[in-house]
Parts: sequence; C-alpha cells; structure tokens
Amino acid sequence: MDRAEIERQLAVAIDIVEEAGAIALRYFRQPLEVDNKAGDVAFDPVTAADREVEAQVRARLAEHFPDHGILGEEEGFTAGSNDACWVLDPIDGTRAFMSGMPIWGMLLGLTVAGRPVAGLMHQPYIGETFAGLSDAGSWFQRGADRRELQTRATDKIEDAVLYCTDPGLFLETDTMAAFDRVASTCKLRRFGSDCYGYCLVAMGQADLVIEDLLQPYDIVPLIPIIEGAGGIVTSRDGGSPNDGGFVVAAANRELHARTLDRLSRQ
Amino acid sequence: MDRAEIERQLAVAIDIVEEAGAIALRYFRQPLEVDNKAGDVAFDPVTAADREVEAQVRARLAEHFPDHGILGEEEGFTAGSNDACWVLDPIDGTRAFMSGMPIWGMLLGLTVAGRPVAGLMHQPYIGETFAGLSDAGSWFQRGADRRELQTRATDKIEDAVLYCTDPGLFLETDTMAAFDRVASTCKLRRFGSDCYGYCLVAMGQADLVIEDLLQPYDIVPLIPIIEGAGGIVTSRDGGSPNDGGFVVAAANRELHARTLDRLSRQ
Repeated sequence: MDRAEIERQLAVAIDIVEEAGAIALRYFRQPLEVDNKAGDVAFDPVTAADREVEAQVRARLAEHFPDHGILGEEEGFTAGSNDACWVLDPIDGTRAFMSGMPIWGMLLGLTVAGRPVAGLMHQPYIGETFAGLSDAGSWFQRGADRRELQTRATDKIEDAVLYCTDPGLFLETDTMAAFDRVASTCKLRRFGSDCYGYCLVAMGQADLVIEDLLQPYDIVPLIPIIEGAGGIVTSRDGGSPNDGGFVVAAANRELHARTLDRLSRQ
Repeated sequence: MDRAEIERQLAVAIDIVEEAGAIALRYFRQPLEVDNKAGDVAFDPVTAADREVEAQVRARLAEHFPDHGILGEEEGFTAGSNDACWVLDPIDGTRAFMSGMPIWGMLLGLTVAGRPVAGLMHQPYIGETFAGLSDAGSWFQRGADRRELQTRATDKIEDAVLYCTDPGLFLETDTMAAFDRVASTCKLRRFGSDCYGYCLVAMGQADLVIEDLLQPYDIVPLIPIIEGAGGIVTSRDGGSPNDGGFVVAAANRELHARTLDRLSRQ
C-alpha cells in the first residue's frame, strides 16, 4: 500500500471511530447500579460499551475494507485476505471510563505485514482525535483546532516528564525496580494516564511512557501517532513493541536510548 | 448570610472563574521551552498562569465583594471587614497542567466564619463546572447540560472506587500504610486525580478520595461541592478538613466511618 492509500484508509477509520464515539458516550458517567433485567449478573456499562463499539466499528470496517483482517479486544482476530490488519481497542482505559475520568480513548490502528503504519486515538467526551502515519506525520484535531504533533527534544531523563497508568502494572520486583530507576530521576512522574499519556508524548507535553502488561491492541494504534510526531516506541530491550508487554515510548532517540540503558542497569 | 445571598454570591463567583478560564487556556499546552527575554530564569507557564488568574479573580472579587477577605495560593491572605472569605486555588493540579493532562481545575470557595458554605471547580479546557452549596445541593454544568450531583450509596470499602493524586503524597511510613490498608481492599484505586477526583465523588462516579499534604485552598472550595451532593469530608481523625493536611472525602457517612476506622487500625 502506498502512502496516499494508507492516508485515505486512516481518514475513513477516523470517521468510523468518531461516529462510534456516540455509543461510548451513552454509557460514560451513567450510574453503575442500573436496573438489570437479566437477573443476577451485574450490569457492566464498560463491557456493554466495549462490545457495542467494537461491533459497530468492525461492521463499518468490513464494509469499507472487506479484505483486511481485524484484531479487536472483545471479538479477537478475524483473518483477512491481504496483509493489512486493523487493530482495535474499543475503550482503552476501562478503569478511567468506569470512574468518570475523561481520559480513556477509542483506539484503532492499521498494520501492513505486521507493521503499524497508521493509528488514531479518539476521546469523544472532550472531542479530541490524535492521529498519525508512522512515516508521514501526526496531528491533533478538536473541532476547528487542527495542529501538527511534534515530540519534544528533551534528551535527559532528569528533564523528562514520565507518564504511567499505574504502579500496579509492574508485578515483578525486577520490572518495578527498573521503572523506579527512571521514575526516581525524571523531572516529573505522573500516574493515571492510559492511552492519553502516549498522545501527550506525541504532542510534546510529556517525554516518556513506561508500562508493562500491555496487550497488542493497547499499543499498536498509538505507535504511528508517536512515530509520526518524531518519537519512538519499543519493548524494554529495544525490540518491537507490537506484541505489547513491557513498552517504552520516548520523545526522541537520545532520550529513548538513555531510558533503555537506565532500565537495564541492575 | 442567608442561603439566597450565598447562592447569589456563588453565581457571581462562577462567572468570575469561568471568565478567568480564558487566561489559563492561553498557557495550557504551550511549549515549555518558550523564548525567554528575561534572561537566565526559565519561563514557567504554570506560575504565569497561576499569577495572572489569581490577579484577575482577586480584582473581580474585590469589585463585587469589597468587605470579604481573600486567601489565595499566590498572594496569600488579604483580610476583609466581615466574616466572609474567598479561598482561591487558581490552578489546582499544576503537574497535570504542565504536562497537558486536562484534569486540573480552577478552585474558588466561600467561607463564612471559617466554615466552607459554597464552592466551585471549573475546568476550562473541557468546559465543565462543578459547584455546590454545603446545605443546599450541588450541580454540574457543561454547556446546556446541567444536572444535580448526588453521591453514591456505596457503603463498603470493598465496593468503593478510590482516587488519590499520587502515592508520593504519603511521605511517612504511617500515612502510607494507612492509605494502603484502604487502597488494597477497595474495588478500584486510581492515581492522577487532583481536584477532579473530589468532583467525581460528588458526581457519584467515585466513592473515596484520600490524600495528605493538602493546603487549605486545595480542599476548602471542594468541600461544599461534596457536602451538597451528600458526601462528607474530614481530616483523618474525623475533624475539620479546612486546614488541609490529611483529608478523607467519602460518598456517604457509613463509608466514611468505615474508612476512618480502617485508616486508624494499626
């Protein structure tokens, strides 16, 4: 696929996800104790929103791109007949979603032969979309406000703003210690970020995200946004982040190299 | 002051803070490395936003309420000639502000004879205002969407959603252990909340906020929002939270009592 075709497909993907934002908003900030006619099973608005969003996005993608595969959090993998695959997390940040915090996002990325080439994050409550093409730039849009995304030049850990969703992501003593070595020396470390933290790196408002236990759909759609803005995303050892797990996103190559070094030093 | 007069003053305060939101937004998400004509001193957009917002809000409050005192984060205390005092945090959540995360807020509260009676939180980027009268209800407004706030009936810690800005707020072994006793048993514990967490308790989206090291202006404006919605805010030992320090905000009296008990158990 050439760049123009990838760009065209990303534009379609943005329309599809923004349209599905209305579904997510029907469940956001609704009371958790909803009348449950199904009986004993508790009504779970996050799961309901996840499922309905994924069903609609899958259906719309299949209409537009019948040959592409789709990997989604709820329904798993549906094979396509070409080497392109959509990767979907209908509601990333379910804990933020279920507690009313408006920094969850709807993630959709496109891989070609396994490589993330385009991606988007949409936050329907605030009305923001962050989107990017790995090789051709990233942008932010909110209503009429559209701007290019550019990561910062921060090259020292001591000057970096680090985001992480939760310290509970580091279940092993080794991973927690590695995270702490970076967190204890950076300028600012904040928790509670979900997909929003990666978008802030792309936007040049933060410099690092370090997280463990990610699923592929948690990170693949975000990679093109960060790369298109000048940043870099890898696994802890500098390899591909496409399978999730322990992931490091950095504003630039120098900061990334220093961060991997600090993570690996025992 | 009777309730109608407090309500009138809160309405004026909301107008003043919402107007000052435009100042804060001029500094939000601006590059940190701004051309600095002052020389060696680094330009600090948070401090600039804090100062400009506080100066304008103080000036407008003085026009409308010349007899009231004002306590603000930047300029400290200005005595009034009656027993009413405005308590102002121009940008609560400066770390969120400086890293582009849109959950900081502008806080303004009214105390009469030292008691918080009215308060508001305004988040200008999202366009939300949470406001309350301690004795007469709280509400949320975003554009044309206005709704009453009501805390949840969650009465067990095991079912509670707990927010806290940062684990680093608990500097002493004792306070960290006390927090952990609650956090480890609640249904969900999230970090990264700032003033927004208290508003989510008022909104019935979260059940608890536990934090230490608060300043009076961090908490006083939020107390009427939570109380007006049916919640309760105290210090760790059940006393007044008006001086800040270790603060517990809970959705209802039963959950609050159980939380204080868990915090105190060694």
